[in-house]
Amino acid sequence: MSAALEFLRESEGRILDELRAFARIPSVSTDPAYAKHIPEAVAFVASQLSAASLEHVGVLPGDGHPAIYADWLHAEGAPTILVYGHYDVQPPDPVAAWTSPPFEPTLRQDRLYGRGTSDNKGPMLIPIKVAEAFMRAQGRLPVNVKFIIEGEEEIGSRHLGETIERERQRLAADFVHSADGARWRVDLPAVNVASRGIIVLEASVTTAAKDLHSGRYGGTVANPLHLMARLVASLHDESGRIAVAGFYDGVKEPTNAERDAIASIPFDEPAYLELTGASALVGERGYSTLERQWIRPTLDLNGLWGGYQGAGSKTSIPHAAYAKISCRLVPGQEPQRIAALIRRHLEQHCPPGGRVAVSGNGHGALAYEMPADHPCIAIAETVLHELYETKPLRIRIGATLPVSEMFKRILGIDTLLFSFSTSDEDFHAPNEFFRVQSLKDGLAAWARYWEILGTQRAGVYAPFRHSS
Amino acid sequence: MSAALEFLRESEGRILDELRAFARIPSVSTDPAYAKHIPEAVAFVASQLSAASLEHVGVLPGDGHPAIYADWLHAEGAPTILVYGHYDVQPPDPVAAWTSPPFEPTLRQDRLYGRGTSDNKGPMLIPIKVAEAFMRAQGRLPVNVKFIIEGEEEIGSRHLGETIERERQRLAADFVHSADGARWRVDLPAVNVASRGIIVLEASVTTAAKDLHSGRYGGTVANPLHLMARLVASLHDESGRIAVAGFYDGVKEPTNAERDAIASIPFDEPAYLELTGASALVGERGYSTLERQWIRPTLDLNGLWGGYQGAGSKTSIPHAAYAKISCRLVPGQEPQRIAALIRRHLEQHCPPGGRVAVSGNGHGALAYEMPADHPCIAIAETVLHELYETKPLRIRIGATLPVSEMFKRILGIDTLLFSFSTSDEDFHAPNEFFRVQSLKDGLAAWARYWEILGTQRAGVYAPFRHSS
Repeated sequence: MSAALEFLRESEGRILDELRAFARIPSVSTDPAYAKHIPEAVAFVASQLSAASLEHVGVLPGDGHPAIYADWLHAEGAPTILVYGHYDVQPPDPVAAWTSPPFEPTLRQDRLYGRGTSDNKGPMLIPIKVAEAFMRAQGRLPVNVKFIIEGEEEIGSRHLGETIERERQRLAADFVHSADGARWRVDLPAVNVASRGIIVLEASVTTAAKDLHSGRYGGTVANPLHLMARLVASLHDESGRIAVAGFYDGVKEPTNAERDAIASIPFDEPAYLELTGASALVGERGYSTLERQWIRPTLDLNGLWGGYQGAGSKTSIPHAAYAKISCRLVPGQEPQRIAALIRRHLEQHCPPGGRVAVSGNGHGALAYEMPADHPCIAIAETVLHELYETKPLRIRIGATLPVSEMFKRILGIDTLLFSFSTSDEDFHAPNEFFRVQSLKDGLAAWARYWEILGTQRAGVYAPFRHSS
Repeated sequence: MSAALEFLRESEGRILDELRAFARIPSVSTDPAYAKHIPEAVAFVASQLSAASLEHVGVLPGDGHPAIYADWLHAEGAPTILVYGHYDVQPPDPVAAWTSPPFEPTLRQDRLYGRGTSDNKGPMLIPIKVAEAFMRAQGRLPVNVKFIIEGEEEIGSRHLGETIERERQRLAADFVHSADGARWRVDLPAVNVASRGIIVLEASVTTAAKDLHSGRYGGTVANPLHLMARLVASLHDESGRIAVAGFYDGVKEPTNAERDAIASIPFDEPAYLELTGASALVGERGYSTLERQWIRPTLDLNGLWGGYQGAGSKTSIPHAAYAKISCRLVPGQEPQRIAALIRRHLEQHCPPGGRVAVSGNGHGALAYEMPADHPCIAIAETVLHELYETKPLRIRIGATLPVSEMFKRILGIDTLLFSFSTSDEDFHAPNEFFRVQSLKDGLAAWARYWEILGTQRAGVYAPFRHSS
């Protein structure tokens, strides 16, 4: 075992304590009510980078919640990686559904519960602690490393593109080594090679100027809750297919080979049902569950509301209803075009008596797919094979990693997802947790990855870098 | 002008001040958060009744928010009336939509804005002040008067039935003179002779045990917001007719004569649109707006919610959706039977992947219709004709007055609605108000009514009393 690995093994308790301190900061990016906690998270990350003896630690110029930079570039001839992670987290709502408070990280059965522990504070702390271990134990890193830790991943990395654009020189690297992305399953080592895109919209249906007494007006005026329900119901057909005209234009049907590859991946439906608590797996007819999750686009309401929600009853006809809508996109779907199609659908399908308004919040990202022969994948497969004594699978994820597409487009480089969170850890939901074992595995795996990468020459990566 | 009328004319300013004090008490009956203010309202009403020199002022035994009683029974040979009103109010939500705070009554352009000013605190104060005026100015009332002022009208008068049952002897009267009910339009004097019934339900659709990440699970699990939307959409057909099997069983189609009578009543559609701010009048095909409002049943969602409602976006698939449902019923529809039909419809129409739960809150009331030749109607017509110099119309209301049906069933007597609130006064909605002129008109009208009624003998009413 290398000195760095030994140092990490001895530091596991301290690193867990540092993660607890990090997860205590409610750095929710979407809700302005939490804005005051963003600088706390920035300071935490910067001090961690400095403690790891990284150089040029600082905030990158730009709008929005700041991105933090650091580097160590003294491994001459070795490849250069850009480590990516994010310090922002999802809102904790519904707070009442948490067993322990979302921002009081709590250890139960070797799992650390708390908002952001899994997405992405635990995983993103790992490469920082690995850098620290190499510097302390060996005085140097095996590879050249640049860090970019952003604060807007949960809101579509709104300003990251501008920042990367502006800092193209400083961020130049052979590939992105991402601490974000999540593993598919804890029992099946795998490398992610593709992710879905996203678009987010909000719609309202307004019927009257004010709420109206349901007795005095009932039967004579449109009820926006009913209109919204019909409008939402119009978005899918009976077979679960999205009924928005043009939505599937440009989406390629999978080849038989692609379908066979997906079908060969073990998928335990009863376990999936148990994990989600769902009574049935539901979706677009004609596609397997993994196909629907990985290579088919979706349209989901994330919120729907209008009228009285309090205790008891209030016999009023409300005058407006609201819906938050998001789509997961696949290659061939351009986010703004999809947003425009949905907007048109909502406008055309609103029943009489209602007025529709649709707004987007700029949160959009293309789907992403990496070249199958990229050398960074092979190293990941070697490391995971060693660690878990099983040959890892190549898989896709249904979620969105807009930054992979962004790095490819702006810096011309691919992104290797090497997160040690796992998809069952309830990120974006109450009772998010991170397995303590994943923290340990992640520390060992990142250290091994960098050791192996350090034996390669930078030139290996030249064919995979495309300047735009 | 009688001494009582003169006394009232001189007291208008003071009475308005008393109404402001009354409306300052947030006596919301449906929400336990306001429960502590109920005793304040009870004390206010009791002291008003005592100040009017009424006798036997006190709270009637019974569960729930208490009903208050008072009487004056020394008009020998004259008819006896039971005055009805309620001191409880609707919740103020959404509070942000109010121009002035809901419980800080504010005078603007001769209208008193505040929750409960119109429904029912202003109207119910009127008969108390009229009693006070007769006692102060003339030392006696022209008729025998009993008061029952309840605190649960806005939650379906849950315990009033038991109370009336228990107090049948004490509450015996020739008819109920109700301060609740609201006038149809301020420019068209009218007497209400019928009202719709009501039933209230709450439904939930649950799909999973927890919220799930929309990327990692999207396309594979049911979304309760979509299921609820389809379920809600299934409640009406394309013609606006309620699609719940058996819903219209027992509902009589109006005769041509009934339709002609309704068609002869002036109805100003542009004014109605302007009042509501609706872009179109929408409802069951084949019936006029007034028919839909008065003699056709409805099914309306009063609330609908699930998932994220905060600022920005949260890319989660929620695991539950909720709906508050109410129906306005017409003669022939038994509330509990209708509730059972809706429950069955929801259970049978829930799309795959969802589990429906339906709960009722016991809030139910039959529709009500009074005999056309009841002498109390003729007096109302005389008084309104004198006051407004126009022959009043006979109309129905779409709203529910469960107490009319309750008084008929338990005490065997009819209820004359003689409220001076008006249907455009935004009760059950933000910015509820009561016209100062309506307060003045109401005081004069109630005083005249009692003067005329005092010239009749009690025996006139015997044929209209039916002991059960």
